[in-house]
Amino acid sequence: MTSYTTGKLLEQVKFPQDLRDKITEDELPQLCDELRDFIIDVVSKKGGHFGASLGVVELTVALHYVFNTPHDKLVWDVGHQAYGHKILTGRREVFHTNRIYKGISGFPKPSESEYDAFAVGHSSTSISAALGMAVASRNLKQERQHVAIIGDGSMTAGLAFEGLNHGGVENTNLLVVLNDNCMAIDPNVGALKEYLTDITTSHTYNKVKDEVWNLLGKVSKFGPNAQLIAQKIENGIKATLLKQSNLFESLNFRYFGPIDGHDVNHLVKVLNDLKEIPGPKILHCITEKGKGYKPAEDGDTTKWHAPGLFNKETGEIIKIIPKNPEPPKFQDVFGHTIVELAEKNDKIVGVTPAMPSGCSLNIMMKAMPDRAFDVGIAEQHAVTFSAGMAAQGLIPYCNIYSSFMQRAYDQVIHDVALQKLPVIFCLDRGGLVGADGATHHGAYDLAYFRCIPNMIVSAPMDEEELRNLMYTAQADNYGPFSIRYPRGNGSMVEWKTPFKKLKIGEGRRLKNGDDIAILSIGAIGIEATKAIEILSEQRVSVAHYDMRFVKPIDELLLHEVFAKFTKVVTLEDGCIQGGMGSAVLEFMADNNYHATVKRLGTPDKFIEHGTQEELYHECFYDVNAIVETVKSLARTSTNKAIA
Amino acid sequence: MTSYTTGKLLEQVKFPQDLRDKITEDELPQLCDELRDFIIDVVSKKGGHFGASLGVVELTVALHYVFNTPHDKLVWDVGHQAYGHKILTGRREVFHTNRIYKGISGFPKPSESEYDAFAVGHSSTSISAALGMAVASRNLKQERQHVAIIGDGSMTAGLAFEGLNHGGVENTNLLVVLNDNCMAIDPNVGALKEYLTDITTSHTYNKVKDEVWNLLGKVSKFGPNAQLIAQKIENGIKATLLKQSNLFESLNFRYFGPIDGHDVNHLVKVLNDLKEIPGPKILHCITEKGKGYKPAEDGDTTKWHAPGLFNKETGEIIKIIPKNPEPPKFQDVFGHTIVELAEKNDKIVGVTPAMPSGCSLNIMMKAMPDRAFDVGIAEQHAVTFSAGMAAQGLIPYCNIYSSFMQRAYDQVIHDVALQKLPVIFCLDRGGLVGADGATHHGAYDLAYFRCIPNMIVSAPMDEEELRNLMYTAQADNYGPFSIRYPRGNGSMVEWKTPFKKLKIGEGRRLKNGDDIAILSIGAIGIEATKAIEILSEQRVSVAHYDMRFVKPIDELLLHEVFAKFTKVVTLEDGCIQGGMGSAVLEFMADNNYHATVKRLGTPDKFIEHGTQEELYHECFYDVNAIVETVKSLARTSTNKAIA
Repeated sequence: MTSYTTGKLLEQVKFPQDLRDKITEDELPQLCDELRDFIIDVVSKKGGHFGASLGVVELTVALHYVFNTPHDKLVWDVGHQAYGHKILTGRREVFHTNRIYKGISGFPKPSESEYDAFAVGHSSTSISAALGMAVASRNLKQERQHVAIIGDGSMTAGLAFEGLNHGGVENTNLLVVLNDNCMAIDPNVGALKEYLTDITTSHTYNKVKDEVWNLLGKVSKFGPNAQLIAQKIENGIKATLLKQSNLFESLNFRYFGPIDGHDVNHLVKVLNDLKEIPGPKILHCITEKGKGYKPAEDGDTTKWHAPGLFNKETGEIIKIIPKNPEPPKFQDVFGHTIVELAEKNDKIVGVTPAMPSGCSLNIMMKAMPDRAFDVGIAEQHAVTFSAGMAAQGLIPYCNIYSSFMQRAYDQVIHDVALQKLPVIFCLDRGGLVGADGATHHGAYDLAYFRCIPNMIVSAPMDEEELRNLMYTAQADNYGPFSIRYPRGNGSMVEWKTPFKKLKIGEGRRLKNGDDIAILSIGAIGIEATKAIEILSEQRVSVAHYDMRFVKPIDELLLHEVFAKFTKVVTLEDGCIQGGMGSAVLEFMADNNYHATVKRLGTPDKFIEHGTQEELYHECFYDVNAIVETVKSLARTSTNKAIA
Repeated sequence: MTSYTTGKLLEQVKFPQDLRDKITEDELPQLCDELRDFIIDVVSKKGGHFGASLGVVELTVALHYVFNTPHDKLVWDVGHQAYGHKILTGRREVFHTNRIYKGISGFPKPSESEYDAFAVGHSSTSISAALGMAVASRNLKQERQHVAIIGDGSMTAGLAFEGLNHGGVENTNLLVVLNDNCMAIDPNVGALKEYLTDITTSHTYNKVKDEVWNLLGKVSKFGPNAQLIAQKIENGIKATLLKQSNLFESLNFRYFGPIDGHDVNHLVKVLNDLKEIPGPKILHCITEKGKGYKPAEDGDTTKWHAPGLFNKETGEIIKIIPKNPEPPKFQDVFGHTIVELAEKNDKIVGVTPAMPSGCSLNIMMKAMPDRAFDVGIAEQHAVTFSAGMAAQGLIPYCNIYSSFMQRAYDQVIHDVALQKLPVIFCLDRGGLVGADGATHHGAYDLAYFRCIPNMIVSAPMDEEELRNLMYTAQADNYGPFSIRYPRGNGSMVEWKTPFKKLKIGEGRRLKNGDDIAILSIGAIGIEATKAIEILSEQRVSVAHYDMRFVKPIDELLLHEVFAKFTKVVTLEDGCIQGGMGSAVLEFMADNNYHATVKRLGTPDKFIEHGTQEELYHECFYDVNAIVETVKSLARTSTNKAIA
């Protein structure tokens, strides 16, 4: 095991009880420095999220110092800021395995540690979850504190608001710590962010409170008439200015702050005070993403969200420059192609819920700022807002990660598909995503979209196909049109091919064969082409069909397949229940075909983190698995159970 | 055609342009009375939603009077309050066909009228949709007004908040009319509702504003020192009290109100003023559900939400008392059974997002108020809140309508299934729901739940099975457990049978047979039993299997089926893509069975409104369709395409 910079205080802290027993309040700032150094050291060498965890070092230490964890419950929103928490809760020595296959998860995970009160990964769940815990403690008559730590970016999602609305009327021990750094992964957007900035920078809220009290004090010197007025105002002010002049107090949370989230001793004092105050309350902390690491503080915060490996002395991010040109990321193909299309079609607009750099819509946001919208962490709104634009004649490309699209499922059905509005869903991160793990895999979208009427469900195998699908989707009004592609690089170095309009629901035969047919959907089809080459060397003749569309599925092509083949393999980078393979089985049943079909895809369990290659292997649809499946199928007899 | 009470002013108004051309401002109150009488008359004889539409009569008239519809866009949230809107926009003469098969929809629907700017049915979409339209108009350089009319109940949903958060930073012509009647279908709950009540009843917000100004005026008389203080405060107040002292102003919406939503002339004046003010703004109107109909005003507002037929003179709701005792509604079986279980198991709690009377959780809310939670229109929160409680050892029964569960899909996957938490989802309104139509059918849940790992997906055929599934779900920790049942009555008069623990994933053979097997899931299985009787008279011998669980599916039973039968019919009250029938096909493929399978279920299109019977017929899975399918299958040969 390589060892990592571990200061002498941090060395003593294996668990939070050590922190509380062995570290004095005076030593806390030093412990914070050591914790920060440790994170910098490990992440620089091993990769992972960076800025968010550095920003909450003091908060993390203060929370574990003040609260009796794990008896008291900390719920970290999103969770990629919980590195410090992991290091202080028994996982320092395995922290270098963070996000690595079979290593610890990059997010809190109850099955990993009793200190992880709730599994997270998607944003904005913490208030609802902590409220549920607080109500449980109340009903079970357990003395316990419950803390949700949530960023200002996460606060924009509807779920957070729903949690506040309910939390405000439940009398429970619920503390919401608002970690305000003006950022989601990209800079936070929306009215709430402006409001928080306003409170913070002008301090007017507290100033006005103070000054009104001062005034009232002074006015009372000016005789009975002024007294009377002052009294009336005082009552009014008590009722509204104090109670309602703050958005959170409107929702019945007692609001405290804003305070400096990097002053650990002050945090300890304030948290100790708040522990004694019953009922729902919110502490507004101002923090800085990347705090304490100069290059991250001064540089591009988005870049330092998860910078990859870097030289921690110089702050230089280590880029491996490939010897030969490499295929681009699907994300960048999307980003450049939407601009190219939008230049020709002025109806096109782009929408992303808080992922402009992740999905590369930032290219369009820069090129045509009034036609590209980052709506904040708000997937539901992103879809219904797109529906509204489409209802008025625009053509929105709404780019949402597959696993986040789960947040907007009803909006897709109810606001788009039901009206057959031409919203083009670009489903990024379809399939297994790699190091982000179980919460982020885009495993279900083919199944959950395929059952919606009016939907076109497609997935390109490579860059050219992505461009053609994007082009096709706007060339006519087809209603809702989903285009799904994975995280990462495609397979074509020369990707900028001329646009070609595709026929809706038309797949393609990529290769003839005699023994077995593989039907693939999406970029995983590239693995099939590799497998087929290997098999061809072994004299197994395999035909390859790229279905391109899961819905409408190409029935003409399927008739061709099942007229010829009795052994078929379906291949998708998505769940095998209800996915493309099932669509093929449905076609067979409806047309009374009886072939032997082996479906390859994500099995019926949650898949953990690792590289995409490691996970394809685990899920048994990498090249070798395809080869093995075909060979095993070639050996089996097809005649069974026709009575 | 029966004719309905149509006053002489209303007679002249076929379209909004008539309203604007022919009706003077002085006549507006009378027109409102006539419109109200018309609604009362038709709904009393034909049924439908009631209270909500009566509450917005004045608002409806004022909006169409002031705005240039359909050029200007009105987006009605939820939409069951849009009866007046429908009557004034060319549909008065067909209004008596409201919610009837092949008649007009109970909700706004763009395919029905150009005045219906956006299809609705689920709540809280209006702000996002209207904002999308407003941005489109801005980008397309069209002069247009966009109005979202949203109830205070709908305002609690996260989607509404997401819309406000974005709307506050887009400079568009967006007016949000907050129709505040303190109600969803049931009384509204949550901190926001308390806040709105506070603004409304105390008027402190406006009072404080006024009094502070007064004070500042007076203080200035007291010399230079007071002047200075006053000035400093004034600046502070301008920055915060005016801009931020109101929740909506915190989000950058200009707030106006509260005003009387039943004073049509005042509404016209205010709306005319607001038309001239650019940017996002909100008008807070106080209305009364059922306004203008005495029995509804004085009576139980929830009851008058959709009262069924009634005698409009006496206010007596017409109840058809059946000669013989009838089977209970599944809803009431749920409501009584959860109380029965909760009395024995103190870990059990109940959760509903704003449907206590619809799903009958109100029985538990009355019996054990601190263990049953109405969290408002907030499906996402309902699920994550349940997850939080389950993480701390409680057993939540989270009751959500199938079509509303679409709103919480990510929360089910990410917050419950991933952690295998024991949340019991009672999926009410599974399958076709009847008169509420396309937006409300619970068509997709079997497909969208079946692909989630760790989920148990079940559906009882009758009341006894519902009770046994509810009992089984809490008898052990199985992780997420979904129990799905339809709207309306079951089939057992004597329903209160003793509890019996079922084996997870175990179906049952209800009847032996020789020719064909029917595999059914859920209450629609009752139709199969009827069909089998008819078929038996025609000497077709049909076996019947009630699968009971879609996941895990009963493989032992399926081996029995496919060992014996080459012709199988699957039957479900849900979408045929990816549903139970597809699960059966997947089993066949995985086990290399080759039978001829005909799947009956909801076809791949949006189904409109009608009675459940009419819709089962249309979708071809009523008794006759089952009979026909079996007979046609009995005639076909199974041997095809085994090469």
